[in-house]
Order: sequence, then C-alpha cells, then structure tokens
Amino acid sequence: MNPPAPIRDGLLDGVSVARAVRASLRDHVSREMPDDSPGLAVVLLTADLAARKYAESKARACRDLGMTCTLHDLTPWVSNMRALGKRLESIASDPRVHGLLIEHPLPPHVDPIALYAHVPTAKDVEGISYANMGRLMLGRPYMVASTAAAVIRILEHYGVQIAGRRVVVVGRSNIVGKPVAALLLARDATVVTCHSKTPDLATETLRADILVVSVGRARFIGATHVREGAVVVDVGINFEGGRMVGDVDFEAVRGKVLAITPVPGGVGPVTAAMLLSNLVQTALAQKRGSETL
Amino acid sequence: MNPPAPIRDGLLDGVSVARAVRASLRDHVSREMPDDSPGLAVVLLTADLAARKYAESKARACRDLGMTCTLHDLTPWVSNMRALGKRLESIASDPRVHGLLIEHPLPPHVDPIALYAHVPTAKDVEGISYANMGRLMLGRPYMVASTAAAVIRILEHYGVQIAGRRVVVVGRSNIVGKPVAALLLARDATVVTCHSKTPDLATETLRADILVVSVGRARFIGATHVREGAVVVDVGINFEGGRMVGDVDFEAVRGKVLAITPVPGGVGPVTAAMLLSNLVQTALAQKRGSETL
Repeated sequence: MNPPAPIRDGLLDGVSVARAVRASLRDHVSREMPDDSPGLAVVLLTADLAARKYAESKARACRDLGMTCTLHDLTPWVSNMRALGKRLESIASDPRVHGLLIEHPLPPHVDPIALYAHVPTAKDVEGISYANMGRLMLGRPYMVASTAAAVIRILEHYGVQIAGRRVVVVGRSNIVGKPVAALLLARDATVVTCHSKTPDLATETLRADILVVSVGRARFIGATHVREGAVVVDVGINFEGGRMVGDVDFEAVRGKVLAITPVPGGVGPVTAAMLLSNLVQTALAQKRGSETL
Repeated sequence: MNPPAPIRDGLLDGVSVARAVRASLRDHVSREMPDDSPGLAVVLLTADLAARKYAESKARACRDLGMTCTLHDLTPWVSNMRALGKRLESIASDPRVHGLLIEHPLPPHVDPIALYAHVPTAKDVEGISYANMGRLMLGRPYMVASTAAAVIRILEHYGVQIAGRRVVVVGRSNIVGKPVAALLLARDATVVTCHSKTPDLATETLRADILVVSVGRARFIGATHVREGAVVVDVGINFEGGRMVGDVDFEAVRGKVLAITPVPGGVGPVTAAMLLSNLVQTALAQKRGSETL
C-alpha cells in the first residue's frame, strides 16, 4: 500500500483514487498476464438506453487497460428464466471470459441473485452470489461488490482511520449497505446500520466519525445530520433537473466536515475502477488454477 | 405464530421457549414425516470429553422427538485434511443423514469453514457454509446458526418488538454476532455492532433498547452498561468456580432492566431446540426434493 494521499480542500477526490487503481492494474496485467488479457462479459437484459450506455462505458474502460469486454444482449430470453440461465452458463463457460456481470437496470421481474446461480463464484465480479456474500461475512472475501469496495478504497487512499471509529452506514442494500458494513467491521470499526425504519436518523448520524450514505434520495442528508469534523462518503447518484447530485447536500455539509466525496467525481469513478480490479483478480485466480475456491 | 407469552419477573425464560419449539417440531415431524424420521450426523474431531458430552446430549434430544442421531468419530483423520474431507462427503451422502454438524471444541489447527466445503449447503445445519451465510446476508436465509436463531426466537416468543428499536450487539463472531446482526437488520432494527476494539463500550450499550451480548467473558457486562428498561439477551456460557455464568452480571443487572435471559436457562436450551428445528427443516426440504437450493 502506498502512503496515504493528502486531503485537499476537504475533498475525497475519487477521480485521483480511480487513476491510482487503474495505474496499478495496468502494471499488474502487463506483468502477470502479458499474453492473456482479462476478459469481461457484460450481459444486457433490457433495451434500456442507460443500461447500454453503462455497458459501453465499461467496455471502453476495459480496452483502456488492455482488457477485453464482450456485450451479450440476452433480452430475447428474459421471459424464459430457464433459457436465460442456460445462456448465462454458456457465456460463463468460455475460458476467455474471466468475469461476468449483469447490467442494471434490470427488467422488474428479474431477480439478479437467482441469475447468479448460473455463474461460477469465481466469475461473479459483482460479488452478489451466495458464496461471495458468505465469504465476505465470514471474513474471507473473494469478490466484493465494487461500490462497497470503492468506499473502503477511498478511505484507505486518503489515510482515514477506520479501526476504533464509529461508522454509521445509512442504507442496507445488498450491493452497498450490507457489504460496506461487513468490510468496516472487519477493519475494526464500530458499525451502526441505519435505514428507512430508523426512527431518529439525525441522532444516529450526528454520532458518526465516518458517515456512509447510500439511500438513493437527492440531498437527503443535510448539515443538521453531520457533526463537525466527520468524514462523509456519499454513494448516491441522483438527478435533479438534469444535474447529478448525491444523497448528501454537498454545499450545505462541506464546510462542517473534515472531508467529503463530491458527486460526481467521488465514489462513482472508483466503483468503475474496482470492477476492473475484481476482473483482474478473477483472471489471475483462473490463470493460477485456483478458481475453484 | 402464537400470541406472545407474558414476561414474568423480568425473566426471558429459555426453558419454556425451548419446550414450545420442541412441541411444535414433534407435531411437525409426526404429521409431515411419519415414516421417515429426520437424521442428524454429529462428527467428533477430538477425544475432548466436553465434545463427547455435547454430542451425546444432542443424540438424546433427537431421540426425544423421534429423530435419529449418529455419532461419527473422525479423530483418526484430523491430521489429514484431504482424507477428512472425503469422510465428511461420505457421511453427508447418506440419504438418511439430513443434517451434519461438527462438534465443538475443534482441534486448534482445524478450520470449520473449510470443512463445510465438503458438506452440501442443504445439510449444513450449523448455517456456517459460505452459501448459507450468503443467503442470510442477502435476505434469503435457509440454515441459520442455531444460537443466532435462538436469540430471535426468544425475543419473538415474548413479543419484544424489534422493528424500529436500537439493538446493540456486543461480539462479532461468525456463529453469533454476525448472523444475529443480520437477522435483526432484516427485522428493521437499527443495529450497532460492538467488539473488543470499540473504544467506549458502555456509551454504546447504554443506548441499547435491546442488548445482545456474546463475548465469552464471565460477567463482562454490569449495571453501568445497561439503561433502565432495556431488554438483555445473554449468549455467554462461562464457568466460575464450577458455576455456570453468562457474559452479563445477572444479579447486578436484573433489577434495572425490563427483561433478561438467565444463564443457565436462557439462550442455551433454545439453541439446542433451534438446531433440531434446522434439522427438521432440512429433512423436509430434502423430502420435497428442494434441497438443491
């Protein structure tokens, strides 16, 4: 691990964290896999334009690091879960595919966790399969959801101490709140998980040394929710009149806290980089023949 | 679910909870599996007398409900993990074995989680395999560690409201603290997980509506740790001069709280009953052919 980067202007700048992650991955790939580049399969289950845009942006990010990315449009099979499962198995069985992910948003009737029963644990770069979530909970993480991994990477990049701190996580989704809480606990934080049924949220968040917010509501957390000197990680991505904003009211909170991730330019770019990191890790494990876990 | 039982003298009496669980299991087994009783395999990996005693007590509890229990002494194989894995696979492949557990204490070099790679998820009645822990974390529990399940069952039996309450869990083990926190979160509690690296434990525990303690230290939690009117669940089993005591100083705390589990007679008997409940559930799932999960 490199020495921590200084925090400038109270900003936990995700763009420079992502740059550092990608640089280290590029080295890693060229050194360890000179002839056999990691391959990602991105599965599309809707004709949704956003899904296609996200998928294409992942493909570009892969190519930038000398990795391959193939897009698989499985929308013709979404009404037949059995056939869809078979298609996923067939894609995952390709030895050039080291990781597979199913692009969001999904059609409403599709259960992503059930679909991952058709993807080997070793190729589940979203970290959403039973086995990968179980490994995380049992303190032996293999693939971790990239957004959750990004939160930790940002804190570590800037040398924010986690051990012994009170961390309040707002939100309990399977891909952010729960895995983030598990990762923080493993790093010796005292972890408080809050959610929509928490009666007095501000009382909880005001006691946070570190506050991680992932609720999907624009500027849900304001100045009255944070204590002076806290560190805030805003996982939210919302749109207000065409402008991207987080779950935290950045302008209101910024002056009060020690440091905060901006939106855009905070967790988002690091999440994209951590997905590539997951892919490199699966590719190396498969190359070494340790993919059976 | 039956209507909640009244709390008498501030005691969450585990013996009567266990009795209710066993009565319901007995009905269930005689109605659903009249000719094909659930079978448990208990694996011993040490000559430790306590392990043998625990195993024999499980065998008696099984027989009391018309279930079968076989003891398997695998101590000759503990120095060869590969052979041990094969033996476990062979025991688990017996169709009369619906659940398998490895008795504690284990030899120091043996990793129970690695051993469960040799046991099908459907027969992991300890709920300690990657897949079972992942299912719990993802909100689709199948087998849950019996001690964690016992904590919830006691609260539900006595009608202690969980949703919207602040629950502080002290301890973060794989078989108690982590699964209890996941179960409480799924029931809409705000969950705080504390442990040995929490700087000011009393500040945390004093804010608990419900306090769950599992640290393995005799009378670690005293009157200064609990607020008036709290509900306390003591998972600890410790011995002081031959006397069994919990992690909570029962005499000191009892007058201050709304209700508390005694030790002995609290979580212990319910844990034993929840193991049998897990076994019945696996047996029924296997009978219905849904054991592939």
